Amino acid sequence: MTTILFSDDADALRPSPIRRFASLINDPSVISFAGGVPNPSTFPAEALARAAGRAIRERGNEALQYGPTAGFPALRERIAARLSAKGLPAGTADVHLTTGSQQALDLIARVLVDPGDGVVVESPAYVGALACFRSRRARFIAATRGDERLDVAGLRERVIAFRRGGGVVRVLYTIPNFQNPSGWTLSAAGREELLACAAELGLFVVEDDPYGEVHFGAPPPPPLAALDREARVAYLGSFSKTLAAGLRTGFVRAPRELLAKIELAKQAADLCSSSLDQWTLAFWFEENDYDAHLARVRSFYAAQRDVLLAAVNAQWPREIAVSRPDGGLFCWARLPGGQDASALLARALEEKSVAFIPGEPFFAGEGDPPRSFFRLTFAKEPAERMREGIRRLGELLRSAS
Amino acid sequence: MTTILFSDDADALRPSPIRRFASLINDPSVISFAGGVPNPSTFPAEALARAAGRAIRERGNEALQYGPTAGFPALRERIAARLSAKGLPAGTADVHLTTGSQQALDLIARVLVDPGDGVVVESPAYVGALACFRSRRARFIAATRGDERLDVAGLRERVIAFRRGGGVVRVLYTIPNFQNPSGWTLSAAGREELLACAAELGLFVVEDDPYGEVHFGAPPPPPLAALDREARVAYLGSFSKTLAAGLRTGFVRAPRELLAKIELAKQAADLCSSSLDQWTLAFWFEENDYDAHLARVRSFYAAQRDVLLAAVNAQWPREIAVSRPDGGLFCWARLPGGQDASALLARALEEKSVAFIPGEPFFAGEGDPPRSFFRLTFAKEPAERMREGIRRLGELLRSAS
Repeated sequence: MTTILFSDDADALRPSPIRRFASLINDPSVISFAGGVPNPSTFPAEALARAAGRAIRERGNEALQYGPTAGFPALRERIAARLSAKGLPAGTADVHLTTGSQQALDLIARVLVDPGDGVVVESPAYVGALACFRSRRARFIAATRGDERLDVAGLRERVIAFRRGGGVVRVLYTIPNFQNPSGWTLSAAGREELLACAAELGLFVVEDDPYGEVHFGAPPPPPLAALDREARVAYLGSFSKTLAAGLRTGFVRAPRELLAKIELAKQAADLCSSSLDQWTLAFWFEENDYDAHLARVRSFYAAQRDVLLAAVNAQWPREIAVSRPDGGLFCWARLPGGQDASALLARALEEKSVAFIPGEPFFAGEGDPPRSFFRLTFAKEPAERMREGIRRLGELLRSAS
Repeated sequence: MTTILFSDDADALRPSPIRRFASLINDPSVISFAGGVPNPSTFPAEALARAAGRAIRERGNEALQYGPTAGFPALRERIAARLSAKGLPAGTADVHLTTGSQQALDLIARVLVDPGDGVVVESPAYVGALACFRSRRARFIAATRGDERLDVAGLRERVIAFRRGGGVVRVLYTIPNFQNPSGWTLSAAGREELLACAAELGLFVVEDDPYGEVHFGAPPPPPLAALDREARVAYLGSFSKTLAAGLRTGFVRAPRELLAKIELAKQAADLCSSSLDQWTLAFWFEENDYDAHLARVRSFYAAQRDVLLAAVNAQWPREIAVSRPDGGLFCWARLPGGQDASALLARALEEKSVAFIPGEPFFAGEGDPPRSFFRLTFAKEPAERMREGIRRLGELLRSAS
């Protein structure tokens, strides 16, 4: 066989540390807090089936044909109107569609990041974003994410040091709302702080908001993009967590100068995203009340979170800190005394048939990542299995401490 | 407004020279031979609508959910079986799905091409592939494409010279069947020659075959990938021209070592392609006879080609050479005496409301591209409008010569 010589970018690609757990996540005999995907019971299947049928029968010449690289205007217009109502003024031309918001991230990485550039990421951060920037051979500058705030003082120091060393840093990536993996949300003050710091350092902000609509109480504070007066923020959204993840339709609202480059990069990347997905969503929106649907999605996940946290409170030693998210799909937990979450996972699988994700892959900064964090999703398991899984983990945790 | 500093790759992105004609292609008052998209009347809309409905109602937990990065095995297995029957032995693991075959091309460019590398492309070549390689900042090494053969002697010379200059060349890109833009097909001997030359020069071959199933007479000679004994060829296919372009589902059959890298690159690029598209196709294949459908598609385009060429023969001066493709969507024409096809287009639009694509953007080699070629598609217009458009162009051509 011919030896294939790969590109330097290809040599930098690494398997997702989370995909390694895929077999566990899908093994029905394992109680899984490991997944990161929405619960399919929240997908409005029958209404989407009707919408898909209408899309093909009534708009087949578009729904089955190549579409505009930026996406069909019908859906973009609807998204723009919704963003405008949320304090993010946008017309159709300000919103482009992508194959999930992951592709928006990837296209932005292509047009804003050169190999060796620094990229500011949260610590911890979404692993899919880290993979994206890694595939551009970026170097990470970690900004410690706390509940409510990002450590802007530390990030300022590290960016200045990186630049003093000759490095280029242009991009800061954040999930302000119900972050993956931590579940934390930046406060209004935390957002102002972050934006001021980005302005001071001349950073362009990529605001990823896949979970913002899935809030359990009051909506989160306004997006960074709504506070931005300098065209410094790209806002990424998606229907993956609210309608259906398999209709790969994300969107990006950004300065037009950036959208123009994104569109060119997307032409080369895949010409256009699925037309059927876009028209299915367009018809679904025409026939259904998104806010009423969102209310159901929110109460589903809120109830799931409550079950998980009630079980944790009842069953786990108090030394184990678990975040209480106000939205999204994830809780973030920490073992006391520097205990190792990967070692716990090995025992949890073997002795208890319970899975979760150790926190290590979410930390991208320099030095050894902390090993005591782990992520729990409340999206997958029904209440009884969540309670049972938390009970079993509690046995382990008590025996370990 | 903040000045956005783009990456070097972004600075290399150029608008597609063909997209410039989009408004003409879509203006119903213009008779258009300019498009490159399939005719929607060939899409089996009603059967696809039923398949989409079943996909969501019966397999919603998959069709509406994130899927495997490599694609759902159900559809991959079916494609693998079909490839095997065509002389391309493949199991499910040998075939990965992508967001159209354009994405397969893009992912291959990412993992096999470094900035500044040479890439061997046909002259003329598919502009979407050129855009892909340009977005990697590749330099082009042109191999003259003739009817039946590629000029391997010339390509050998240019590759050797490029390497002597210190350049790296790893990839040769070709559309052997009913090529876009020329309509030409490599003969069996031309394929053997190409593969021997690739082996001699240590080139990896990317064989793009979007039109192979759309043959009007006997099928084209076996794919390069079927002749390959050295795992030197990646074979790209698609349902865009045979079932529906808007269900963005292409595929790549390649050595597993390459597929592993493609999968990692795709994780970063978009996590997975549309699950709904994949399951719609899977159900469509279950319920329908693809070969019977292909027979209808083939005879539709064959009849369209016949109308176009009969009109050309009846109406155009003999000095204008027009290719007679045995499949696909395109004819390739050449004006005599070095006349400029762009100048002709300007007059055709203004005086006759007829559009086609000048050939210049399809030539990527060094030096000035030839200006006398142009591409005509017979995919779009009904017979009467084709005849009328060719008649009008004939008036112009006679007055110009």
